[in-house]
Amino acid sequence: MLRALPKINPGLILQFLLLISVIFMAIVVPVSAQSVEENAESIENLQTALTFLWLIIAGAIVFLMHAGFSLVEIGLTRTKNTANILMKNFMTICLGVIVYWAVGWGIMYGADYAGLIGIDQFFLMGADNALWNSWWFQMVFAATGATIVSGAMAERTDFKAYLIYTVLMVALIYPVYGHWVWSGAGILTSGFLVDAIGVAHHDFAGSGVVHSIGGYSALAGVLLVGSRIGKFRNGKPVAIPGHSLPLAFLGTLILAFGWVGFNGGSTLDGNDPYVNLVIANTFLAGAAGAIVVMAITWMKTGKPDPSLTANGLLAGLVAITAPCGSVENWAAIVIGIVGGIIVYAGVMFNENVLKLDDPVGAIAVHGYSGSWGLLSVGIFSVGMGNGILADAVYAAEGVGLIYGGYQQFLIQVVAVILSIVWAFGISFIIFKILDWTVGLRVSEEHEIAGLDIVEHGISAYPEFMILKE
Amino acid sequence: MLRALPKINPGLILQFLLLISVIFMAIVVPVSAQSVEENAESIENLQTALTFLWLIIAGAIVFLMHAGFSLVEIGLTRTKNTANILMKNFMTICLGVIVYWAVGWGIMYGADYAGLIGIDQFFLMGADNALWNSWWFQMVFAATGATIVSGAMAERTDFKAYLIYTVLMVALIYPVYGHWVWSGAGILTSGFLVDAIGVAHHDFAGSGVVHSIGGYSALAGVLLVGSRIGKFRNGKPVAIPGHSLPLAFLGTLILAFGWVGFNGGSTLDGNDPYVNLVIANTFLAGAAGAIVVMAITWMKTGKPDPSLTANGLLAGLVAITAPCGSVENWAAIVIGIVGGIIVYAGVMFNENVLKLDDPVGAIAVHGYSGSWGLLSVGIFSVGMGNGILADAVYAAEGVGLIYGGYQQFLIQVVAVILSIVWAFGISFIIFKILDWTVGLRVSEEHEIAGLDIVEHGISAYPEFMILKE
Amino acid sequence: MLRALPKINPGLILQFLLLISVIFMAIVVPVSAQSVEENAESIENLQTALTFLWLIIAGAIVFLMHAGFSLVEIGLTRTKNTANILMKNFMTICLGVIVYWAVGWGIMYGADYAGLIGIDQFFLMGADNALWNSWWFQMVFAATGATIVSGAMAERTDFKAYLIYTVLMVALIYPVYGHWVWSGAGILTSGFLVDAIGVAHHDFAGSGVVHSIGGYSALAGVLLVGSRIGKFRNGKPVAIPGHSLPLAFLGTLILAFGWVGFNGGSTLDGNDPYVNLVIANTFLAGAAGAIVVMAITWMKTGKPDPSLTANGLLAGLVAITAPCGSVENWAAIVIGIVGGIIVYAGVMFNENVLKLDDPVGAIAVHGYSGSWGLLSVGIFSVGMGNGILADAVYAAEGVGLIYGGYQQFLIQVVAVILSIVWAFGISFIIFKILDWTVGLRVSEEHEIAGLDIVEHGISAYPEFMILKE
Repeated sequence: MLRALPKINPGLILQFLLLISVIFMAIVVPVSAQSVEENAESIENLQTALTFLWLIIAGAIVFLMHAGFSLVEIGLTRTKNTANILMKNFMTICLGVIVYWAVGWGIMYGADYAGLIGIDQFFLMGADNALWNSWWFQMVFAATGATIVSGAMAERTDFKAYLIYTVLMVALIYPVYGHWVWSGAGILTSGFLVDAIGVAHHDFAGSGVVHSIGGYSALAGVLLVGSRIGKFRNGKPVAIPGHSLPLAFLGTLILAFGWVGFNGGSTLDGNDPYVNLVIANTFLAGAAGAIVVMAITWMKTGKPDPSLTANGLLAGLVAITAPCGSVENWAAIVIGIVGGIIVYAGVMFNENVLKLDDPVGAIAVHGYSGSWGLLSVGIFSVGMGNGILADAVYAAEGVGLIYGGYQQFLIQVVAVILSIVWAFGISFIIFKILDWTVGLRVSEEHEIAGLDIVEHGISAYPEFMILKE
Repeated sequence: MLRALPKINPGLILQFLLLISVIFMAIVVPVSAQSVEENAESIENLQTALTFLWLIIAGAIVFLMHAGFSLVEIGLTRTKNTANILMKNFMTICLGVIVYWAVGWGIMYGADYAGLIGIDQFFLMGADNALWNSWWFQMVFAATGATIVSGAMAERTDFKAYLIYTVLMVALIYPVYGHWVWSGAGILTSGFLVDAIGVAHHDFAGSGVVHSIGGYSALAGVLLVGSRIGKFRNGKPVAIPGHSLPLAFLGTLILAFGWVGFNGGSTLDGNDPYVNLVIANTFLAGAAGAIVVMAITWMKTGKPDPSLTANGLLAGLVAITAPCGSVENWAAIVIGIVGGIIVYAGVMFNENVLKLDDPVGAIAVHGYSGSWGLLSVGIFSVGMGNGILADAVYAAEGVGLIYGGYQQFLIQVVAVILSIVWAFGISFIIFKILDWTVGLRVSEEHEIAGLDIVEHGISAYPEFMILKE
Repeated sequence: MLRALPKINPGLILQFLLLISVIFMAIVVPVSAQSVEENAESIENLQTALTFLWLIIAGAIVFLMHAGFSLVEIGLTRTKNTANILMKNFMTICLGVIVYWAVGWGIMYGADYAGLIGIDQFFLMGADNALWNSWWFQMVFAATGATIVSGAMAERTDFKAYLIYTVLMVALIYPVYGHWVWSGAGILTSGFLVDAIGVAHHDFAGSGVVHSIGGYSALAGVLLVGSRIGKFRNGKPVAIPGHSLPLAFLGTLILAFGWVGFNGGSTLDGNDPYVNLVIANTFLAGAAGAIVVMAITWMKTGKPDPSLTANGLLAGLVAITAPCGSVENWAAIVIGIVGGIIVYAGVMFNENVLKLDDPVGAIAVHGYSGSWGLLSVGIFSVGMGNGILADAVYAAEGVGLIYGGYQQFLIQVVAVILSIVWAFGISFIIFKILDWTVGLRVSEEHEIAGLDIVEHGISAYPEFMILKE
């Protein structure tokens, strides 16, 4: 019976099986390829979503720094001006939101004109999700410059004049310099200067863009507004103690917390593993700054000074803000130590030599330490593509002096000069005009009475018995 | 010798090669397909993990708002009631955790009964990771309503009565209305009302669910508990200044920080890029609210008022809470400006016309501005699937009045009425019963002495010399 | 004409088509496989990035706890020692950063020697991104132990002695015990002890490692430094009220916020969905602790006590820190309730029986409740791979007493004993040596004057009129 079966060609069977297999795979492979593409797209969406959330959270943490600045400033000044300072800092961020939305962002990140200024995207015209995300993170930085100025000029500046200045800081002073450094098309990272020197300027999270600009603007303001009544007696500085050390320290710790977002968020990428180096370096430098200032004040006076020590932390943090993604841990500590020394020496120099009255030490903390931060990139940078930072796209391009490079240092020096000239110059002009028009300083009578009652009609602590000066 | 080789059929060789290839691919393709599926699963896990972490972090930020509410409330009231207020707000969140776990969640998100109430998942029975995550984020919202009431009734309400009310707020008042709006099965987003009007009610992060409910409950409480001794003299309101403006402002800034989690987290999805629009709109509206109130008080009295300005920020934030994912940037600013005007007018109206004593302005900030937020959705919504929000699954369904739609506005009006009737009605009944039973108000003697000594046996500032009233 | 066509073998055509297909797929399949691998790699990078960001954010939140500890400590002590306490806590975290970088991390996580101590990775030698990330998260924990001691010894301890002790805490005391529990190679999770008992010790986020070590070190310190002048009169404790309840409560709420990072981050994995259980249990326990202490004080004295109630929250949080990933929700509430009872009883016992002066209740909150947390794992653990925690790689290995297991309880008891012996013993020796050398306690004269003026030359509140004791 078996013989009755038709004769089958084994080759044909094989060919038939092959055909079936090939048809099967011809169906499976494209499906699989499609799924691969779908997966790739989902992955890209996830990478974007992670960056969005990271910058929202980092931005929120930086937003809280405005509470930190407020607390430091009121903590280091007197009860009679507390409501005024709270209002100034509060309106700084409120005006900052609107002004940076309407004007500041466009000036900073709009289409470049001549490497100098951005000229579109005002009112965030045509914004999409990515732009709103970037705007949020940049916006919380923008108002910081004005806040720094507020601290240095506290207790004698006219409220209206300060508000006008704040609008100009967020609309113009900060974003113009920001355009030069962070837009990608500005004079400090592209064009003839960079071609001539050979590397781009590097200011990772804004030792220059945020802190120096704030600090040297404050210097102009302090020069023009003059010292508080009673600050200098026979040319000697007189201590005017701040009214609440707890608020000053709480503010300082909130600022340190904020630096996680400030420096960490400045990778602008939720997927970049080098953020860990940024965070480690940031806190190593800050801690070193605090310790060294505590040690200096202890040695000089026999007593470790709390408010200067707190400023030591801030100086370390300000200094590491530019180099935090470009240097080794030990270098971060050195940068913090030098930052601490600079802030101590700077405060002493401002008070005793320049006879400047800066109630919170903002010029030294943000101006001098900020410049030191920019220079330190040129000294300690391991350079992009080298050593610990082989893949870090946000490290400084060139290597620092200690590794034999000089170009990075050179362009950092240029940036230091530019930041001082721009911030001091434009702020000087603006404050001068404000002085001529609305008046920069309150009357002597008002200053003695305190700005709270005079400018706002209230007392910050109406139930507490306050000692008369 | 070569000729001695067997004769090979080239067709057979080809077939053999094909066979090998097909076998090879038959192994490779399924492996690859399996990996594709594995990748897809990993991607899904990542998307879930990102949402989990986003809601944990957003929830943590909202949790911190309880510190913000505490600080605003003590800052705007007197030293003698500070410990009492701190305890009230502290126990509000502590009781909130337990009560929302045991009862509130089930009422709000349990299986629907008649569109009115949830009826299972009490004690989070059968909870898994997703449920714990959702519970955490919703829980930090739940206690907020009671906190709002606490502020309005501060300085004269019995501690025990307040605690009982808080339990009922978290177990019943808040979750019932929340069920109507956010459960997906409630009367405001499904059923005959929605069928009749044509679109679902939209309250993105709770202008109504959280703020209106708190605000109108506060109105009932303030009516029943009466004014603080000395608040009205000959029918005219007398200012009772808060004892610490620094704490009030710190609290306000912590609340603004909290709104990043409050509105941002309410996308309930870590992968949704529209969260960026939510954040941008939130802060544009808040800032606009603050600026406009500062301007109004400046014009009215010649002095920009700090605590009203702080309330202006909060009013803008409360108003934008419902529409933040449905409107353009410019509309967010308009919503904030109107919110600011409403809070100023509302505070004046409450004090001067209704003769209500609301120490922190909670009724105007949360009640009136909350209702405005709901209405503003019906005015400015660009509508889901349109323009900037083409893919935003959480935008309002219908377009607003200015774009020619009326349905969304209609259902928003219905929600405003429902939220007022429910919150005011149920709270009025509860407070009335509390008044008959445990007593709603402390004795005159105790109120004058201050609740800290009487209810808690301590002073909040035992070392500071306090001015007698 | 058709016939003129050459005769074609259909088999050959088929074979040719097959060949083409196979060649096509031989090209497509590898490409696809490559993309699959690329996707898999991108997914892995995303998983790593998510963990990095989660631990950076969680670490930042834990960092802010140092502000919380500062505020609780100054809030519960007197104005005259406020600057000193702020400086102590501030320098604790600053020294902590540097010391844990140089020494502590290596001792804790360096290559194991005999299950007792780590012996490399000092100065984070050879650190990469993963190591910096781990260091950051562990570093913010490390300084906490010293902060706990600071609170218990407040208002009479020499500043220099405290700083030296802090360095030793971060370099040695904390990381050695941490090595035993968390390094994976320590005596409490591997080796003869674990072999003998059968399961590894489990201390999820550090009820023992952080809190017990801090608490029993504090006990040694308090015993050696003695009570503040005036704390005991005729052997009876006298209340010394803290000077600012608002700061104490703000600090407590910041600490609770911090626990989101403390416990949540301790999954050490941004992709682990069980973090949601951790968060839910953490806040259920904390809330239960607060409520129970409020109830106890209310029943005992007729007045709910604010600062003890705040400590009740902390006790619940400390207790749940070990078991939060291993127990059911109801068990978390029970653990919190018992934690609350322990802290109340512990504070009473310390003051009335042991005559210890612990101004902030640190020994009871962190020591006793920490030990209770460790034991509770052995009582309530559902065990890894069981029930709600089927996949949780970080749950306790064994089941608790109530589920019939005894091994987990046994090893938890061993850990409780070891943590007490180590922390109390080594700290006693160190404080004794410090007492002999630099001196542990300030002079009576200095204590009465207050440490602010004596050690730092300033007053924390120079403008406020302070009541004399």
